[in-house]
Amino acid sequence: MSNPKNAMYAQSGGVTAVINSSACGVIETARKHSSKIGTVYAARNGIIGALTEDIIDTQHESSEDIANLKQTPAGAFGSCRYKLKSFAENKEEYQRLIEVFKAYEIGFFFYNGGGDSQDTANKISQISNDLGYPVQCIGIPKTIDNDLPFTDVCPGFGSVAKYTAVSTLEATMDVESMSASSTKVFILEVMGRHAGFIAAAGGLAQNKDNPAPQIILFPEITFDESKFCNKVQESVDKHGYCVVVASEGIKNSSGEFLSAAGLTDAFGHSQLGGVAPVLASIVKNKLGFKYHWAVADYLQRSARHLAAKSDVEQAYALGKAAVDFALAGKNGVMPIIVRNSSTPYSWTIGEIELHKVANIEKKMPVEFITADGFGITPACRDYLQPLICGEDYPQYKNGLPTYVRLKKHLVKKRLPKFSV
Amino acid sequence: MSNPKNAMYAQSGGVTAVINSSACGVIETARKHSSKIGTVYAARNGIIGALTEDIIDTQHESSEDIANLKQTPAGAFGSCRYKLKSFAENKEEYQRLIEVFKAYEIGFFFYNGGGDSQDTANKISQISNDLGYPVQCIGIPKTIDNDLPFTDVCPGFGSVAKYTAVSTLEATMDVESMSASSTKVFILEVMGRHAGFIAAAGGLAQNKDNPAPQIILFPEITFDESKFCNKVQESVDKHGYCVVVASEGIKNSSGEFLSAAGLTDAFGHSQLGGVAPVLASIVKNKLGFKYHWAVADYLQRSARHLAAKSDVEQAYALGKAAVDFALAGKNGVMPIIVRNSSTPYSWTIGEIELHKVANIEKKMPVEFITADGFGITPACRDYLQPLICGEDYPQYKNGLPTYVRLKKHLVKKRLPKFSV
Repeated sequence: MSNPKNAMYAQSGGVTAVINSSACGVIETARKHSSKIGTVYAARNGIIGALTEDIIDTQHESSEDIANLKQTPAGAFGSCRYKLKSFAENKEEYQRLIEVFKAYEIGFFFYNGGGDSQDTANKISQISNDLGYPVQCIGIPKTIDNDLPFTDVCPGFGSVAKYTAVSTLEATMDVESMSASSTKVFILEVMGRHAGFIAAAGGLAQNKDNPAPQIILFPEITFDESKFCNKVQESVDKHGYCVVVASEGIKNSSGEFLSAAGLTDAFGHSQLGGVAPVLASIVKNKLGFKYHWAVADYLQRSARHLAAKSDVEQAYALGKAAVDFALAGKNGVMPIIVRNSSTPYSWTIGEIELHKVANIEKKMPVEFITADGFGITPACRDYLQPLICGEDYPQYKNGLPTYVRLKKHLVKKRLPKFSV
Repeated sequence: MSNPKNAMYAQSGGVTAVINSSACGVIETARKHSSKIGTVYAARNGIIGALTEDIIDTQHESSEDIANLKQTPAGAFGSCRYKLKSFAENKEEYQRLIEVFKAYEIGFFFYNGGGDSQDTANKISQISNDLGYPVQCIGIPKTIDNDLPFTDVCPGFGSVAKYTAVSTLEATMDVESMSASSTKVFILEVMGRHAGFIAAAGGLAQNKDNPAPQIILFPEITFDESKFCNKVQESVDKHGYCVVVASEGIKNSSGEFLSAAGLTDAFGHSQLGGVAPVLASIVKNKLGFKYHWAVADYLQRSARHLAAKSDVEQAYALGKAAVDFALAGKNGVMPIIVRNSSTPYSWTIGEIELHKVANIEKKMPVEFITADGFGITPACRDYLQPLICGEDYPQYKNGLPTYVRLKKHLVKKRLPKFSV
């Protein structure tokens, strides 16, 4: 009997609090089936490492360290922002990948990323077949933006949603305490690109005792300065303060990102990033209120200390399912989360073909946003609520989480050099 | 036997993750000595409520809700930024306070705040005596900036230090994952005003496996742009990325705050707040690296979800000690934290006279900052390390902490109206 084929695992795009939990699911499951899957290699820094032959042999990592990936944020093997072009435009990169796969006897490729990465995984599957070295390519979903279609939720989103909801609640209590004589308006900027799901999660802080956040700014809704100012004024009049959760991706009626619209630095360069300070300027200049603002940026997506339990579990389950799919002979597919029920929350693993996922960007459904454009509807709350439930704390030592750093043992190169 | 005198409790200045733990210590301890301390009133929104006679009767709060204060961030009774002027300048306010104290038969005043508030508490103690209605005034320290003298640490600081250390570690792992092909520099802005203790806490994320943060910018050290750029370049060359933890209070060689120096909005107004985007502009324009930046703002000081255990315990112990001091007949004093040992961490409650505390602002000792001005020394680490140890998670329900909102039952006013 011939040796089993090996596997290649790669992380792609912006990392999350739980992408390593998927890595853990892949590696632990593959190790249980060593008669069918040989070595699990990991590409260092995503697909770039697969091209440049910077290949990590995960056999050098102990079971304890691999298990610890489940509680470790960010990309343990490194990730990248690098999209392969079409085969017609960039034949060399695909041919190189197949050469590397051949050299390492890769039979299974697990690509852990967002929409672009699933598109790439799909192309690799097709092209590997065309080039006479067929590789089973399985996608594993990941993105905090929650903008992948078909899956009920993307791993990474539940934890950033929990972070946003908890932070909004805590900051609300802070500004409420101070509002009688000091800060009246607090603005929290969150990520999400073109999808408002993360901003929407701030709305979970609202309840019968807490009117905040009174304003959520979604990228799906065109920013209207005077409507915004009226709502801030109304909230301060009514509650004494106003909390705004703003998506980084909001645009004005000219279709420009608000974050790039307003600010120039001392050298006259436009200041990139930061919609919160732009909104704060509007609040100050148009309404005169004292304000504070926060930009969570990487803190929100790396906050493993506040991960949602189901998010960690789903990330693991999807990594495991990817290996199960591979063992079942599948190719060009991606495991997804299927919601059976919201109350009580129940989910199972489903499956979708990669070619269907590619290049579709999910946004907030219209029925998730209130008529005034500033809040979330009960339907949105029903969707989001189960996703932030449950805590899954990491272990701590000396006051800090004991996140693992892997050995990342690089295999000696076998092929000619290749630059990207 | 006459009725026991009542007590007045007030929160002051910027709130913290644990100031309510001190409130809990005051109220629970007073309730145990009801033969000596009658009703505990709380001023709504700090000293302003004491002046305007917006007085909360804490007897209406259940024991459960009072106990829950221990796990609730921000100021449960409201706080304020309001400093009483000197008696010569503003006699009316002191006279009014004493009138209110008389009307409510207040014998004990507990003022929970920073340096300014302890100065006020001291003055009230003296003037109440001069005006023939002596009140025992006891200060309770509070400030995330850790800038009060005499006490080893201020309640509120340990938790924000833990938040900063954990967030720095998590964001470091994120930027490290992305740095091969994307973000090279991450900048985290933290609070602290003129004291660099919070920024210093970011240095606790550094260990033998983790060189970041490579740069800490302290308000105690004048910002030097070219030195900063050289260090960023050196870190990226050596480690592939650079993490910067910047105090909001850093100044350039002209003594100007960096946060106010660079940016103007679309209307030409200078943009207040935000040293991180100013530093990011420097990184972009001088070095050309891709960057990300975060401004934690209120999130850091309200992050009760990540509080340090000893911070919560010390805040409670100081509230309790304030009542014990009152019962012992003391006046014009403040309980403080005295460190017995760092390893293992051991502390007791000490005592300082309020007039000694007033108007002294503690800064980072010179021996806590490395010679290059960008890091913390082993002495600083020894000081900070015990303060972030131990977790003290709040209870959660439906994915969010069950922070308490008090009834805040206002007493019917007895005195003529008074405006501030």
